[in-house]
Amino acid sequence: MTDLLPRAHALDAADPLAPFRDRFVIADDDLVYFDGNSLGRLPISTRDRLRQVVDVEWGEDLIRGWDRWIDLAREAGDVLATGVLDVAPGEVVVSDSTSVNLYKLAAAALDARPGRRAIVTDDDNFPTDQYVLQGLAAARGLELRVVKTDLDTGVTLERVREVLDPDVALVCLSHVAYRSGAVADLVGITAAAHDVGALVLWDLCHSAGAVPTPLREAGADLAVGCTYKYLNAGPGAPAFLYVRSDLQPQLRQPIWGWFGQRNQFDMAGQYDPTDGIGRFLVGTPGVLGGYAVLEGARITAEAGIAAIAAKGRALTSYAVALFDAWLAPYGFSLASPRDAARRGAHITLHHPNAWQICQALKAAKVIPDFRTPDRLRIGLAPLYTRFVDVYEGFDRLRAIMASRGYEEFPAARSRVT
Amino acid sequence: MTDLLPRAHALDAADPLAPFRDRFVIADDDLVYFDGNSLGRLPISTRDRLRQVVDVEWGEDLIRGWDRWIDLAREAGDVLATGVLDVAPGEVVVSDSTSVNLYKLAAAALDARPGRRAIVTDDDNFPTDQYVLQGLAAARGLELRVVKTDLDTGVTLERVREVLDPDVALVCLSHVAYRSGAVADLVGITAAAHDVGALVLWDLCHSAGAVPTPLREAGADLAVGCTYKYLNAGPGAPAFLYVRSDLQPQLRQPIWGWFGQRNQFDMAGQYDPTDGIGRFLVGTPGVLGGYAVLEGARITAEAGIAAIAAKGRALTSYAVALFDAWLAPYGFSLASPRDAARRGAHITLHHPNAWQICQALKAAKVIPDFRTPDRLRIGLAPLYTRFVDVYEGFDRLRAIMASRGYEEFPAARSRVT
Repeated sequence: MTDLLPRAHALDAADPLAPFRDRFVIADDDLVYFDGNSLGRLPISTRDRLRQVVDVEWGEDLIRGWDRWIDLAREAGDVLATGVLDVAPGEVVVSDSTSVNLYKLAAAALDARPGRRAIVTDDDNFPTDQYVLQGLAAARGLELRVVKTDLDTGVTLERVREVLDPDVALVCLSHVAYRSGAVADLVGITAAAHDVGALVLWDLCHSAGAVPTPLREAGADLAVGCTYKYLNAGPGAPAFLYVRSDLQPQLRQPIWGWFGQRNQFDMAGQYDPTDGIGRFLVGTPGVLGGYAVLEGARITAEAGIAAIAAKGRALTSYAVALFDAWLAPYGFSLASPRDAARRGAHITLHHPNAWQICQALKAAKVIPDFRTPDRLRIGLAPLYTRFVDVYEGFDRLRAIMASRGYEEFPAARSRVT
Repeated sequence: MTDLLPRAHALDAADPLAPFRDRFVIADDDLVYFDGNSLGRLPISTRDRLRQVVDVEWGEDLIRGWDRWIDLAREAGDVLATGVLDVAPGEVVVSDSTSVNLYKLAAAALDARPGRRAIVTDDDNFPTDQYVLQGLAAARGLELRVVKTDLDTGVTLERVREVLDPDVALVCLSHVAYRSGAVADLVGITAAAHDVGALVLWDLCHSAGAVPTPLREAGADLAVGCTYKYLNAGPGAPAFLYVRSDLQPQLRQPIWGWFGQRNQFDMAGQYDPTDGIGRFLVGTPGVLGGYAVLEGARITAEAGIAAIAAKGRALTSYAVALFDAWLAPYGFSLASPRDAARRGAHITLHHPNAWQICQALKAAKVIPDFRTPDRLRIGLAPLYTRFVDVYEGFDRLRAIMASRGYEEFPAARSRVT
């Protein structure tokens, strides 16, 4: 497959998103970054905005900054709604962490389906989602139905259907699986859940900013997602939540805080949740993180999800071509769907020595993600990843495998991966 | 009282904390900032640290930054524990917002006192605290006993005692009242609650970094607090929570997230909370905010709470002297304790035209806080407020009152105060 490098160059030359790479800080052009799906790169506009917020808005304006900051959670939410998630303004707000948002919306959904005794998730859902649901099920004496999935290809409509019945209050699944990158049938599963009267809560952590999120087409109820992956809002930036507008007046989340209060600064004694998406806010929101979400969402909106998703499919397809050409002899297998339309913007490879290989790659300035116990996750964030980067990273991986260079690394796993 | 200005100069000259003012960004020396109890000033070290975190740790280190960030919540918590709150390392962690932390710890406390049917708070507690408790009481069918207080002098041990009985699971109060600045008897109330077998959760938002928090002396159970007031960690910076070490294994908070999980990166299927304070974490913590807490807490620790509290008493006493000398004829009354030992670092004045006066002060470059419906709150953050600032701010207030300059401002209240 001697045409693989020219193919990368040709794909880069034809890439309509290529100019977006210049919008990000690229400190070391020799570093191959395959982990934008864990922590996205720093947008230059975000670096500049954060300086402005810290130096001027906090440092000089002081408390008067709140005249502006008070609407930031909704403002950033509206950019996410219209530019990233394709839902209506007022249906998304930036708030808390994904885990806390998941708790708030799952609890609200369970309260809205009293008498129903079951929650559905799957064993491929991200751990924090499973933990939050376990906690709610334990506190309320509900049954948690965990659908078994093929971890390489993700949850299917058929498997979900098998556990749906009128006792199900809530279905909570990831739209794009964190391990395999498999895309779930958001529209079909939502319809099936609605058929039995259940609400659905989608985790968009690995899809927001990478693939279309057909919430509107599905008439989806609820969603949460993080902003530090494909939305490039920085480490631990606040998450977002989505509630379909007609559902908002019917739902009440359990953590009653002053940012969810009607006429908050009246300091009234009795909690009375405000109308609209604001009722899903709780405490004082993080301003630095909120601005980082705003800037990151704007860049994504400007590029457009359709173009981003198309490039994501092309990048992962090119990576699969390299895998097929180079890696199969070394004991790797593909742990992601072969159909590009069923993938997000990352692919995962199985290998029994995945941990050691991951360390060897890092030493060779290729940064993937290890996922326990034997997976190498390769994230190809479309806004700044070039096809030549994919070539270069896989070429270094091939060299490590050919020389068995990974064997010099200990097999122990570190805490952070 | 012609000696008031010389007195300010003398107090400033003798102030051992005077050099700390140089550690903060002071963009406009003519601005009198009386609102460090709402949003503290920007420490220079925080500005520099945030640049380093954004530009280098995020921009260049990318995902590898997590090797360092993973312990940040505990690291900042330990500085707060040992340098600010005088409790043991491992008893404090930085996490979420104050409201979310209050929810987590209140719920954990209620779970630890099954069968008890009542929660105690007071009508002077900050609204978000009241809302969180209302939500928990409603969800669990508990009685919320709201102690009536004198809003100018704060909650008393006697009033709390009147509502304590063995049916009380939890007492939740503010250590320093947000309106009056009155300091509650943390030790006495904790003992009284323990006498009936209840747990106590203290809100330290207006005391952390301003006055001693005798958690250790009291054998206090639980506490939460914010970091953007006297701890100068910036708008919406993450909050902290405290759990006495021997209580930690007995408590489980309700939001089960992956940052509270034992061996988090094993991605295990069943939630198993880690030992220690980490079990009160939930989702991925905000890194920028975490560093701002770390830097702010370090400055406070370096200055020392005893020195900070002594200066706070001196500043508020000086402000009361100015009030007595100048303001009584204009219809003000003091809405804070006269005894300096019973105050935090702010005082509050009553005036029927407080809103308009607040606007006139801002126009004259004096920034206080308005608190509905008729209170002017004057925060005198000890680390950077000079006695001459207090003189200057009160002098401008006196001039506004003498000229009735506030009458040109509309009586309507804005949303943000």
